[in-house]
Amino acid sequence: MAEYTLEEIAAAVGGTVEGDQSAVVSGLSGIEEAGPEDITFVANPKYESLLKITNAGAVILGEGVDAPGLNVVRVADAYVAFARVLAMFAPEPALPEGVSDLAYIAADTDVDESAAVGPFAVIDAGAKVAARSAICSGAYIGRGSSVGEDCIIYPNVTIRERVTVGDRAIIHPNAVVGSDGFGFATVEGVHHKIPQIGTVVVGDDVEIGAGAAIDRGTMGATVIGDGCKIDNLVQIAHNVTLGKGTILAAQVGIAGSTKVGEYVVMGGQVGLVGHIEVGDRVQIGAQSGVPKSIPPGEIWFGYPARPIMETKRTEAYIRRLGDLYARVKALEKKLEEKG
Amino acid sequence: MAEYTLEEIAAAVGGTVEGDQSAVVSGLSGIEEAGPEDITFVANPKYESLLKITNAGAVILGEGVDAPGLNVVRVADAYVAFARVLAMFAPEPALPEGVSDLAYIAADTDVDESAAVGPFAVIDAGAKVAARSAICSGAYIGRGSSVGEDCIIYPNVTIRERVTVGDRAIIHPNAVVGSDGFGFATVEGVHHKIPQIGTVVVGDDVEIGAGAAIDRGTMGATVIGDGCKIDNLVQIAHNVTLGKGTILAAQVGIAGSTKVGEYVVMGGQVGLVGHIEVGDRVQIGAQSGVPKSIPPGEIWFGYPARPIMETKRTEAYIRRLGDLYARVKALEKKLEEKG
Amino acid sequence: MAEYTLEEIAAAVGGTVEGDQSAVVSGLSGIEEAGPEDITFVANPKYESLLKITNAGAVILGEGVDAPGLNVVRVADAYVAFARVLAMFAPEPALPEGVSDLAYIAADTDVDESAAVGPFAVIDAGAKVAARSAICSGAYIGRGSSVGEDCIIYPNVTIRERVTVGDRAIIHPNAVVGSDGFGFATVEGVHHKIPQIGTVVVGDDVEIGAGAAIDRGTMGATVIGDGCKIDNLVQIAHNVTLGKGTILAAQVGIAGSTKVGEYVVMGGQVGLVGHIEVGDRVQIGAQSGVPKSIPPGEIWFGYPARPIMETKRTEAYIRRLGDLYARVKALEKKLEEKG
Repeated sequence: MAEYTLEEIAAAVGGTVEGDQSAVVSGLSGIEEAGPEDITFVANPKYESLLKITNAGAVILGEGVDAPGLNVVRVADAYVAFARVLAMFAPEPALPEGVSDLAYIAADTDVDESAAVGPFAVIDAGAKVAARSAICSGAYIGRGSSVGEDCIIYPNVTIRERVTVGDRAIIHPNAVVGSDGFGFATVEGVHHKIPQIGTVVVGDDVEIGAGAAIDRGTMGATVIGDGCKIDNLVQIAHNVTLGKGTILAAQVGIAGSTKVGEYVVMGGQVGLVGHIEVGDRVQIGAQSGVPKSIPPGEIWFGYPARPIMETKRTEAYIRRLGDLYARVKALEKKLEEKG
Repeated sequence: MAEYTLEEIAAAVGGTVEGDQSAVVSGLSGIEEAGPEDITFVANPKYESLLKITNAGAVILGEGVDAPGLNVVRVADAYVAFARVLAMFAPEPALPEGVSDLAYIAADTDVDESAAVGPFAVIDAGAKVAARSAICSGAYIGRGSSVGEDCIIYPNVTIRERVTVGDRAIIHPNAVVGSDGFGFATVEGVHHKIPQIGTVVVGDDVEIGAGAAIDRGTMGATVIGDGCKIDNLVQIAHNVTLGKGTILAAQVGIAGSTKVGEYVVMGGQVGLVGHIEVGDRVQIGAQSGVPKSIPPGEIWFGYPARPIMETKRTEAYIRRLGDLYARVKALEKKLEEKG
Repeated sequence: MAEYTLEEIAAAVGGTVEGDQSAVVSGLSGIEEAGPEDITFVANPKYESLLKITNAGAVILGEGVDAPGLNVVRVADAYVAFARVLAMFAPEPALPEGVSDLAYIAADTDVDESAAVGPFAVIDAGAKVAARSAICSGAYIGRGSSVGEDCIIYPNVTIRERVTVGDRAIIHPNAVVGSDGFGFATVEGVHHKIPQIGTVVVGDDVEIGAGAAIDRGTMGATVIGDGCKIDNLVQIAHNVTLGKGTILAAQVGIAGSTKVGEYVVMGGQVGLVGHIEVGDRVQIGAQSGVPKSIPPGEIWFGYPARPIMETKRTEAYIRRLGDLYARVKALEKKLEEKG
């Protein structure tokens, strides 16, 4: 296990030590679990009261928070510094090294010599894997698909044919990229399959969660913009586009041809109908069902989703319905008495 | 890339050319993206206005739609014709050919000589794969299971033991068919597993989406009728039955023993409780939560789901609650003034 | 197929025969499908009326239910007895036997000699598989992870590095345990990944459903308590804890750091926000969206979720809104007439 002095940690995160800068920490832990050998952090004001009772040996803090009696590494942004310190304490990566003899790599592929391929992974005909990327056990890279530099494709991921994945992408276990879109032309009770001849273009710095499914375009491409972060078990239908930096929490579902802007954030289990547009920087609360387009910058919530203030007002009205029924009854009685 | 004259395309889709029948197109594209080398289509009236500004070289249209100045392939049903033309432009299929030396095929299996099996696929003891079916890389066909003719079983699919899959089925990557149903008998705080000794029967012409999960029956079978189309990440519990031609959009969940009729359509993220019946040709709106049986032919929506007109009326009442509170307040004031 | 006399069955389930104890049954079936060669059961009063018309050769019944003319195996708990009889009729297990030559087992692993490993499964460096456990085809056991005794890890499961799985766990096909938690620190529009250096601890007697995803802790562990039963396509985020005996139906999603107590039951598609606490023995109805902590023992339902009586009262108020509008209109008219 790694060990660092607070001086070393402060240097790594661009901070300063308040207290004993030669103090050594050998682990990183949550404020409630931390012991004297651990460094911890507080980025959320709701946990500041725990600073008085923590057993941590040191704490990473932003400006304006005091921690009497504790060694402090003072930084501009405690959450960002925490991420850097996490990386310092991270165990060895558990990725394949080199190309396993037990992988199948078709003849006409282009696998960079610095790439790694695990046992029982398949790099199918014409596929390309760029420098320093790892294709883990049981993952499948389809015909003519390409994976950029410094990617991690975790075990049992399926990337079908003609898909493009950018640099520094991380695709978590058992995710699927490039499955057929869901389209049928129904004639006299028979659902004829619409061939899905398009593809998926995944940008740089994208994460795709475990078990997520991203369909290929019917024609053209389903597009996942640079820097998008997609959580587990998310469903992205054919010809959806996500602008750069958009974040989708777990189990979100987006129906076909919907265009989502940049830096949009959706909570878990949100559903969007097809063929709508969601503007840049929109935020959508968990489990919302979105039936129509949303202008840029708005915050929506509910089923059906509406601007959040409207939904909250409606919820307040609904909570007071018992009172409203009573008032109407009182009016009726009063009027009755008056004859 | 394929090239066709409009005459060739018209012949293929049973249509007629209005304009230059010797004009050549080399691609198929959406009306907004199409260039002079592309053919496009309009099947949805909402896109008809784009006919005036498209750059497409030709357009597939049904009756009653005009496109002055454009080469038109006139057909009875533009959407069906579009599906056929998509197939004409489809790239080579990216499926395994022949049986890979790197597959594992148990001794007593029955794999047709025209079937294909990819690297690291497993055909377990007693399993059967019929003519022209493709079992892709990393897929698992369990003991005694059978896959019909002309099926595609995509990479990393798991089909457990004693499951029957009909002809022309397509099972998308990482889907699971035949997992244990979720049943426990709880005695004094211990959840004892109910053995799930049944199976799954998948009909002909079925599609099962990426990452979908279809549990086996506790006893008897979970049944997916002929022609059912199941989208990604759908959950089908033990002993559910789906009638023929039923369509389930992504992330639908159906609890145990529920019987769904023929030609039912469910939007994304719909949930159904167990032990209910959904009649033929029922339609259920996205994200609905269905707590009870639905008679044939009805359209339901909402949480909890109700007949759609009822839900829409209720939504209208709810939207006007602010006004209702104001009216009640006005009444109170008026009555107060009258003393 | 197995055959048993009713005397043998009664002995196995600790019951007594009322009728012909030498009668032989060769199958187990639902009460509607059962024929003279089958034994069936009724545990739910709603099916008791079918006792008059069933063709079953025998029926398992608890106290207080009559079945004139039928051979009865009388027991204390019909559902528990049914589970035992199911096991008596269960076909041979379809699991790997021994260690396949086609598996990859890294050099420094500890795989018990009684364990089984299927073709194309991977036991990565430093991993441990204890006695009598089966690791099926295409499953991946990550570096330094351990699987306890008598476990079943079904095909194409991915267990990432440093995960601990207890004894008698069953992990269904294509589930993922130990994927990265979903955490980012956003600075000037760039989402920096928070390294996820924690792990997952899965207790004894746990089931994890097909395609489910359980993320590892950011620091520390995501914890699945002993005896938890998790259905298909469930999402468990980083640092969630589930107390023992908790049951999650399909497609539930639980956001990060939420603490769920013991013997909690959630219906399908329930969503919980992060950083809340759900007390012991709480029950949450299907599709509920839970925005805050729930005290022990309560039953909640709705979107947003509330105590169930409150939600039901609100639903009743909402259903009667048409009537309320009419009453207010009548009051207005009456007051108008009075001038």
